[in-house]
Amino acid sequence: MKKATQQQTKEHNRNLVLQMVFEHENISRAEISRLTSLTRTTVSDLVAELIDERLVAEVGIGESQGGKSPILLSLVKDARYVIGLDLAHDQFHGAIVNLRGEICETVTLPILDWDSESALAAVYRILDQLTQSSFQPLVGIGVGTPGLVNTNEGIVINAVNLEWKDLPLAHLLRSRYNLPVFVMNDSQAAALGEYTYGAGHRSEDNLIVINVGHGIGSGIIINGRLFQGDGGGAGEIGHLNVVRSGGILCRCGNRGCLETVANARAVLRDAQTLTGATRERSDNGEHHGMSLDSLKQAYDQGDPLARQVINDAGYFMGLAISSLIGTLNIHKIVLVGEMTCFGKSWLDVIAETLPKTALAGLAKNTRVEIGQLGENGVILGASALLLKDYSLLFSRE
Amino acid sequence: MKKATQQQTKEHNRNLVLQMVFEHENISRAEISRLTSLTRTTVSDLVAELIDERLVAEVGIGESQGGKSPILLSLVKDARYVIGLDLAHDQFHGAIVNLRGEICETVTLPILDWDSESALAAVYRILDQLTQSSFQPLVGIGVGTPGLVNTNEGIVINAVNLEWKDLPLAHLLRSRYNLPVFVMNDSQAAALGEYTYGAGHRSEDNLIVINVGHGIGSGIIINGRLFQGDGGGAGEIGHLNVVRSGGILCRCGNRGCLETVANARAVLRDAQTLTGATRERSDNGEHHGMSLDSLKQAYDQGDPLARQVINDAGYFMGLAISSLIGTLNIHKIVLVGEMTCFGKSWLDVIAETLPKTALAGLAKNTRVEIGQLGENGVILGASALLLKDYSLLFSRE
Repeated sequence: MKKATQQQTKEHNRNLVLQMVFEHENISRAEISRLTSLTRTTVSDLVAELIDERLVAEVGIGESQGGKSPILLSLVKDARYVIGLDLAHDQFHGAIVNLRGEICETVTLPILDWDSESALAAVYRILDQLTQSSFQPLVGIGVGTPGLVNTNEGIVINAVNLEWKDLPLAHLLRSRYNLPVFVMNDSQAAALGEYTYGAGHRSEDNLIVINVGHGIGSGIIINGRLFQGDGGGAGEIGHLNVVRSGGILCRCGNRGCLETVANARAVLRDAQTLTGATRERSDNGEHHGMSLDSLKQAYDQGDPLARQVINDAGYFMGLAISSLIGTLNIHKIVLVGEMTCFGKSWLDVIAETLPKTALAGLAKNTRVEIGQLGENGVILGASALLLKDYSLLFSRE
Repeated sequence: MKKATQQQTKEHNRNLVLQMVFEHENISRAEISRLTSLTRTTVSDLVAELIDERLVAEVGIGESQGGKSPILLSLVKDARYVIGLDLAHDQFHGAIVNLRGEICETVTLPILDWDSESALAAVYRILDQLTQSSFQPLVGIGVGTPGLVNTNEGIVINAVNLEWKDLPLAHLLRSRYNLPVFVMNDSQAAALGEYTYGAGHRSEDNLIVINVGHGIGSGIIINGRLFQGDGGGAGEIGHLNVVRSGGILCRCGNRGCLETVANARAVLRDAQTLTGATRERSDNGEHHGMSLDSLKQAYDQGDPLARQVINDAGYFMGLAISSLIGTLNIHKIVLVGEMTCFGKSWLDVIAETLPKTALAGLAKNTRVEIGQLGENGVILGASALLLKDYSLLFSRE
């Protein structure tokens, strides 16, 4: 607890007013005053400032509540833009996002044989292009990357796939583009994206979002804020030990990790083993195994081997979710990522696992559902982190 | 975010001053002003009020920092008392605790054959006695109970051992004793106790305390506050599924729960099975098996069966801790409860399990240690929850 200085109080109140504008499609000065307990005069002064900054505009006349009809205010959603970047496993996605989380322009780069240098070069290529776009002014760059991240310092501690170790990514991007940069784990970004833009989640104090794709990670929202843990690794559930004996060797060096049995890589490996699928030569000359699309097709057609593979993966996912339930007792759990293509029947296997592997009293109040943002979750989450810092939106600060 | 009213601001500032007094052995008005950014006049007025309330006293003269030597203020630790209650599995402990967390008087009641009625009667017996003690004024009662608790409403949702289901314990005690009552899960209370009174923990933002006794539970401190989850059950790790096949049936109805393999009950059961120990008739005519004391003795003497039993339990405890590490990435984990009697070698087994079952990058920064408060942790934590609400300390509110 600290007493606020006058300047802090003013900024706090200004951000409070801006928050009200963000949270409502239209809102009057009187309504802002009512919701914030700030005086009408204070609200009017602060709104004038926000209009000056072109962040807020008067957009019409509302219904009278007895007296004069109020002027309605609205966020100018294209007043500022941010860049969101999703360093996904086989392609990097970048996008320009406006203040309402609408995607204005995207750049996608397939990533095939990368190393740490070429991965960074690909990031530069995307950002070089996006920063030159006509959507201006840009107020920051948010990056969601796989791996362990120190968000405060903007350092990627370890991203195995990208071969990054202690990479000062925020510093590099800040120097190159002269913009504020936030770097965060991709699953944590996905959580922030779902929480900020997924319908109905904002009413929850707490939320867990699990990203089940090529890897597995999660993001944990506690009391409305992303919880990253002491080392930035909160939600790194991909390496929960779920297979007790004879587990497969994981890329982390341990055996029996969740990632070895419940993600897209695992089901493709199991499906190939079970079906003895022959490897196809793909267009680019590389050897690829079965695709998730073809496994999904077999699954939808009721192929018993495909069913078995997905059911096994769902069981282990359920086991991990039970562990989250017992640890955090958070009632709403959202699944995102490629594995959600297996839809309701995969979700059913997970749901059936919970009461058998978690305390019934906790499991029965937990809802597990599939996310709403599709493949844009990480981009929107990475950009949402920037938009949480209202001070970035002000040209004079 | 809400604007504060004048009265709220005054209370906030008063509590801020009181917090400084709580956090320092001795402190001057000038130092309070410096730390809180409140003006000297405001601090003087608020301190005068706290002295009036007998919560703060002038206790001496400090060293001059150039000008006049400052008068030192100190908390009057016996100005108020709270009652802490620990409904442990074989005996209930109650204590009167002063404002510095010192235990002034205790009452212990052995609990043998209880049912829901007699358990409640035992609570009343302890509180009847403690509320009549000479330590006055009492400002509240804090209860740590096993089971799932709704702390906001003061309801014990489910405590299997005590046969309580949806018991409005806070309401019952409030009516009977006319005092504010807080009810919380005992492991959550133990966490709050360790965090508040265990040396060195307060500097951590986050802390996990695991209570490994007759049952297993934990309490999770996030950003300096106890996190209870959406349903009050955060930290209920006793029913994490850790044995994948052939697990023992748990009292929760599932198989393979942590409680079936890692707590005092489990090691006694295993030790008896392995040694074929004959059951002894105890003083009160009940049948009891091996005691934890005798198992500890065998363990200390290097008995191989005792070693095996404790090592197995330690392995599963380590597995559960790995799951906490992967989920929360909290760097400090404190163990309390009866199983801590197995000390360093038990701790070593746990520590050896972590890098094999958690992501190495996360495990290496995690310290697991044994708590400092011994059997008083739950009592102190239950009372600490009361002391966090400074408004309870003021007679005029």
